[in-house]
Amino acid sequence: MQTEFWPEQVKGLIEQLGIEHPIIQAPMAGGPSTPELVAAVSNAGALGSLGAGYLTPLQIEAEICKVKELTDKPFSVNLFVPEGISSLVISEKVLKQLEKFSRELGVVLPEVTFEAEFTFEDQLAVIVDNDVPVFSFTFGIPEDRYMEELHKRGISVIGTATCVEEGVLLKEAGCTAIVAQGSEAGGHRGTFASTDGIPMIGGLALVPQLVDRVNIPVIASGGIMDGRGLAASLALGASAVQMGTAFLSCIEAEVPEPWLDSLKNSSDTSTVLTKTFSGKYTRGIKNRFIEEMSVLEDEIPAYPLQNSLTRPIRNAAKGKGDRDFMSLWAGQGAAMSRKSTAQELIDTLVTETNDVLKSMSSNL
Amino acid sequence: MQTEFWPEQVKGLIEQLGIEHPIIQAPMAGGPSTPELVAAVSNAGALGSLGAGYLTPLQIEAEICKVKELTDKPFSVNLFVPEGISSLVISEKVLKQLEKFSRELGVVLPEVTFEAEFTFEDQLAVIVDNDVPVFSFTFGIPEDRYMEELHKRGISVIGTATCVEEGVLLKEAGCTAIVAQGSEAGGHRGTFASTDGIPMIGGLALVPQLVDRVNIPVIASGGIMDGRGLAASLALGASAVQMGTAFLSCIEAEVPEPWLDSLKNSSDTSTVLTKTFSGKYTRGIKNRFIEEMSVLEDEIPAYPLQNSLTRPIRNAAKGKGDRDFMSLWAGQGAAMSRKSTAQELIDTLVTETNDVLKSMSSNL
Repeated sequence: MQTEFWPEQVKGLIEQLGIEHPIIQAPMAGGPSTPELVAAVSNAGALGSLGAGYLTPLQIEAEICKVKELTDKPFSVNLFVPEGISSLVISEKVLKQLEKFSRELGVVLPEVTFEAEFTFEDQLAVIVDNDVPVFSFTFGIPEDRYMEELHKRGISVIGTATCVEEGVLLKEAGCTAIVAQGSEAGGHRGTFASTDGIPMIGGLALVPQLVDRVNIPVIASGGIMDGRGLAASLALGASAVQMGTAFLSCIEAEVPEPWLDSLKNSSDTSTVLTKTFSGKYTRGIKNRFIEEMSVLEDEIPAYPLQNSLTRPIRNAAKGKGDRDFMSLWAGQGAAMSRKSTAQELIDTLVTETNDVLKSMSSNL
Repeated sequence: MQTEFWPEQVKGLIEQLGIEHPIIQAPMAGGPSTPELVAAVSNAGALGSLGAGYLTPLQIEAEICKVKELTDKPFSVNLFVPEGISSLVISEKVLKQLEKFSRELGVVLPEVTFEAEFTFEDQLAVIVDNDVPVFSFTFGIPEDRYMEELHKRGISVIGTATCVEEGVLLKEAGCTAIVAQGSEAGGHRGTFASTDGIPMIGGLALVPQLVDRVNIPVIASGGIMDGRGLAASLALGASAVQMGTAFLSCIEAEVPEPWLDSLKNSSDTSTVLTKTFSGKYTRGIKNRFIEEMSVLEDEIPAYPLQNSLTRPIRNAAKGKGDRDFMSLWAGQGAAMSRKSTAQELIDTLVTETNDVLKSMSSNL
């Protein structure tokens, strides 16, 4: 695999992260970013990322150990900057609808409390204690004392921005690099500080504006599925890309068949932005849960309360292979999904990007 | 100006259109696409476009004559595929709000009727009779007999798609090329046949999916403001770009100062999608009209009725330089606007794209 062709603009970041290719597998909490996927991605010369936001410190430690058994290459662990439950009040209509779905799937609605099962501090301690080389985070900015500790330990730190305003805050907080999450992206919107609602800025507009404002590497994400998207991101000034949906179809992600089928049978218009699953905006493929729940969109309790309430429904649906109630996260490029191993996907991305760059420069 | 560096993928289209650079100035009906701008763009080796959707046949003829006085290069004229007014019923609340605004600006609400001032057929006849080399259209597909006439006359025909499904219809209708309107784009959404609402697909996801499905040239649009966006579009497989917002700041567009100021002072999150001005979704910079009217968004009459109702308000606001009531159309890249002549903008875009391509391929 030829690696020397990458343009100069990626060199700083890939050297800092200790990887060969400017490709980061997005942390996909709640399933797809298995230790096997993370290790396979890192072994292929890109950066694998464990999505550990929902995991207890013990689970995180176990997954990190597993990754380390499978690779000696750098990898990343991602956490969610915590947002406490601010109210336990749930609209009667939402409760009734969730109870109806729960009965249909043979589960019971969970009791919710103000108490979290674990703290961010304890999760982060595992990452620091295990010398994880790259830490990434979503939904906010860790407190200064955590950022300082990470820097002291020589851990690279990557934050997530959905608009320029958030990117500037991440830069000021001392991030190594910033993921620019375009509106095309699947899964949760990382919005944490925008004063203009949930920014939905397409990557073609977001990446160059962020690059112009922060003098640290920007990582493009959202809708990037092949070498064309990767080359386009570099043209926009990105130093790397972060890809989630493209990795869902990797064997190692062990994504349930109904989800894979939904990706395969999707089109460019199959995804929607919805608060119905978690109380926070996410992009996924439309299904019965979203359609029936979205009439109550305005009454849905905030994250993480709704997320806790729908967990048994989502888990039961996954167990039964029932696409109607699964969270089928996907970006707007889902229809370009290709089934392969992680190694094959990364080799293909590298070859394709090289081809695009050659073709674009053939008359220079 | 060096022109030989453009990659092979653009050659077919730019030869067909008779232009030097794969850059199309978007037709911006209702003001900015002045004959002076159109001619200056075409004289600079790109394709200027008259946005003639709102003009009477006589006005179109006059503008075409003006363009021809100023350039002998190819240019394009754009029309709206007509949608009749299907109902004259207007919600009381909308009416009350519009009357309030009208009083504030010293205008009266217009009488609206089912009768159009002119027909699409008469508009199109002027284009055909004046041997306009390129015809583009939005909001639908002209009837077969019109498409046949255009082909017979050797006129290139460009349609507008906001999703793959619409692109396929345009290809089947015999278009020469298709504009892929990404969610980043300013002004009206061109949606006409999507079965999934108003698709808001970012260019990074839309362009490659459309390229994969239609074997005719795809023109990327939305959020493209400089050579980075142009190079990125080519990487995604586009054969050219269409840029609107970037041309608003050209001297020849004669855009009113308050609108120019809004562009200059905007950020990546300044624009919203709104039906308030025309009854059809458009992207523009937030102002008082949008904010106060959008609480009634669900009751706003469909295009073109709302558009006719708000015209006196918009015109009076433009006359007074009152940004609160002007339609400040802009894409998500508005903050990257640069004031210059059209010739300077195109020269800059060409130089920048060349630089990006060189930089990306320096290690190949």
